[in-house]
Amino acid sequence: MIESDRAERYRTRMQRKKEVIDEAIARANREQGLLLILTGNGKGKSSSAFGMLARALGHDMRVGVAQFIKGRSDTGEEAFFRKQNDVIWHVLGEGFTWDTQNLQRDTETAQRGWIIVQEMLCDPSINLIVLDELTYPLKFGWLDLTAVLNDLKNRPTMQHVVITGRGAPDALCEIADTVTEMTDVKHAFRNGVQAQKGIDL
Amino acid sequence: MIESDRAERYRTRMQRKKEVIDEAIARANREQGLLLILTGNGKGKSSSAFGMLARALGHDMRVGVAQFIKGRSDTGEEAFFRKQNDVIWHVLGEGFTWDTQNLQRDTETAQRGWIIVQEMLCDPSINLIVLDELTYPLKFGWLDLTAVLNDLKNRPTMQHVVITGRGAPDALCEIADTVTEMTDVKHAFRNGVQAQKGIDL
Repeated sequence: MIESDRAERYRTRMQRKKEVIDEAIARANREQGLLLILTGNGKGKSSSAFGMLARALGHDMRVGVAQFIKGRSDTGEEAFFRKQNDVIWHVLGEGFTWDTQNLQRDTETAQRGWIIVQEMLCDPSINLIVLDELTYPLKFGWLDLTAVLNDLKNRPTMQHVVITGRGAPDALCEIADTVTEMTDVKHAFRNGVQAQKGIDL
Repeated sequence: MIESDRAERYRTRMQRKKEVIDEAIARANREQGLLLILTGNGKGKSSSAFGMLARALGHDMRVGVAQFIKGRSDTGEEAFFRKQNDVIWHVLGEGFTWDTQNLQRDTETAQRGWIIVQEMLCDPSINLIVLDELTYPLKFGWLDLTAVLNDLKNRPTMQHVVITGRGAPDALCEIADTVTEMTDVKHAFRNGVQAQKGIDL
């Protein structure tokens, strides 16, 4: 009796929920290329962008990736996605700022990188572009924020762009369609665990 | 002159930063299988887990996926990863709770699913397991939380597990190594854009 009450309440609640959700889905009827920002200090920003690459490839879309900052080419993501069809992959960094310690070189590297990104942002045959760790060149002033925002706004209408990195500038979030702030509640690294293959690299 | 001052300050700051970071890296010298929780209302939880799958496959690891709740099999992630080697993929749901509206059926579906997960959690040849949307069966009480926690704790030492879904129970976060809370700052769906291939599915 109590069990059947519980089942009935569940059914009623879910029926009501379905109405609300069906209405929301009916309202969301527009298709467009999205600009997504994945920011904050938590683990999961770049991996989320790579997961969207996998989803897009599953729908036979063409994808492009530009990795700023990162200079290494031994990551799992690069090894894996370079083997796939329809993937353009650029490693545009020369290592972390604390490794190069050279403002002029970092600036020039980022600016050379942005020219390559501009080409992808003009190519409507690329359905999804990941700009991994783009927030740092913006934060350090290596790239002109206004110019970057303009290039993003003028991209093909149906092209999706995903930008990752800590401290996304407000002006970037303002023009974005979806913004997720990833909060670091707990991280294995702080507890003495080194970066793990398959998880962090 | 001012420009060279700026470059010099940058160099000194990055040199100092490098010392701090090198120390932190030296302290984090342990290798272990990690339990990661990706929770919160923001976009990016499942896609982040799928990005880690890609990373792991790039390191020639073997991976397993169990998707709770989701009943559909037309997602980009499934189409893509099923084509890869070394991937075990289980769709264990029968659709959202508001679609089934049947407590007993949802409970039985989840419990049948967990038996399949238990097999993966006993198999040290699977290096990374994604338990997509596991938080809902826990939240609704379809699975016994204590039993699930025990199975997770008793898994092979080097096996990584990534759990996604809103509202991860506190007891689950307590035994996890890394927890990220994804905050929904802005979402295109609320602005009238429907779920997009390559981004949301």
